[in-house]
Amino acid sequence: MIEAVGLDADDTLWENEQFFRLTEAGLAELLADHGDPDQISRCLHEVERRNLSRYGFGIKGFTLSMVQTAIELTGGRVPGQVIGRILELGHEMLAHPVHLIEGVPEALDALAGRRLILITKGDLLDQERKLAASGLAERFDAVEIVADKTPGTYARVLKRHAVDPGRFLMAGNSVKSDILPVLELGGRAALIPHDLTWQVEHDDDPDHPGFRRLDSIRELPGLVERFGTGR
Amino acid sequence: MIEAVGLDADDTLWENEQFFRLTEAGLAELLADHGDPDQISRCLHEVERRNLSRYGFGIKGFTLSMVQTAIELTGGRVPGQVIGRILELGHEMLAHPVHLIEGVPEALDALAGRRLILITKGDLLDQERKLAASGLAERFDAVEIVADKTPGTYARVLKRHAVDPGRFLMAGNSVKSDILPVLELGGRAALIPHDLTWQVEHDDDPDHPGFRRLDSIRELPGLVERFGTGR
Repeated sequence: MIEAVGLDADDTLWENEQFFRLTEAGLAELLADHGDPDQISRCLHEVERRNLSRYGFGIKGFTLSMVQTAIELTGGRVPGQVIGRILELGHEMLAHPVHLIEGVPEALDALAGRRLILITKGDLLDQERKLAASGLAERFDAVEIVADKTPGTYARVLKRHAVDPGRFLMAGNSVKSDILPVLELGGRAALIPHDLTWQVEHDDDPDHPGFRRLDSIRELPGLVERFGTGR
Repeated sequence: MIEAVGLDADDTLWENEQFFRLTEAGLAELLADHGDPDQISRCLHEVERRNLSRYGFGIKGFTLSMVQTAIELTGGRVPGQVIGRILELGHEMLAHPVHLIEGVPEALDALAGRRLILITKGDLLDQERKLAASGLAERFDAVEIVADKTPGTYARVLKRHAVDPGRFLMAGNSVKSDILPVLELGGRAALIPHDLTWQVEHDDDPDHPGFRRLDSIRELPGLVERFGTGR
């Protein structure tokens, strides 16, 4: 019996990665004299990886990594105006509209009998802004904005809400963040793939009885039912 | 009877503002050709104020505001190397050691019979890092890292932990963030002033029966006792 369902937010409930990709394209345009878009993206991803333990996830850290990329790629010769434009790219991201993914409201309606916990990482203020703009806040019994999604993170969240991992299912688009740590705790997990998923979130599908891969969030309520009856 | 005590972290449990001031002095040195330290600080504070609703609190937003200040003060002529140094100032802040304020461990010992809730704002990852480095994590029954400290924030935190505001006391160094919103909810609040407090956190002491101003966190356990007996 699944008593509580955890839902990831970015690229599970609403579009997120597309705004990062658009901004990356904007950065490549700004730095076009210093490399082709592929080189610039590779440099940016490398800088992001180096900064991950320092900045964590979210737009503010991404903007700082874009600034650092511009400096590294140009050997420090990037004009101040270009840096100013990069800051503006960050401001635009922080104001981007929230686009719900198809089928989300209907799936949440169908799940309304369970305890629903939104579990997302990123910048606190930005995630709160998006949740408010999504119109979905009232659907959730709890909202947990976390620095990272490790087994320890999920254990703390489940303990806080007095949920037994064996009665918990997590759904999201990242094998690394939404699936593996929950399976490790003894919970179940549903991958809802998104066309765009940040490369650091990728991992192979696990071979585990508590794991399912869905085509869409529309299939989630049915999966929760089936797990409930042991089928 | 006070059942639960909320404690602010930055500049209540450990030093924080001093690292911002040191970094500000470092920025003034980097931009010495473009203004005296006072002008540079004024410009930075103005940029920070403009960015507050966008970035929230914390070092990543502060670093982005320093970069923006350098661009605005130089009319975009700031060299890329200087921006690179500003990013490094941010990295140094994110790695700064945690210095406990005098009397904190003893005060927490004396409060150990109550439920202790750490309530702090700032970047998630950075606050978690500092809490882990402080060695104080085990003293708290709960940790709440929040985007802002409004009456609504405290109401949510108290509801989540099933604490009646009338049985709650909050202690911290900011009248604006730690005192006024809690008094508004019907709780009690103790101001523990710190020599360095960010100007946006300042406000007048309230004239309210639930408010006390202390000289040091050493006085907090006694105050909690006295409130408990109605004296």
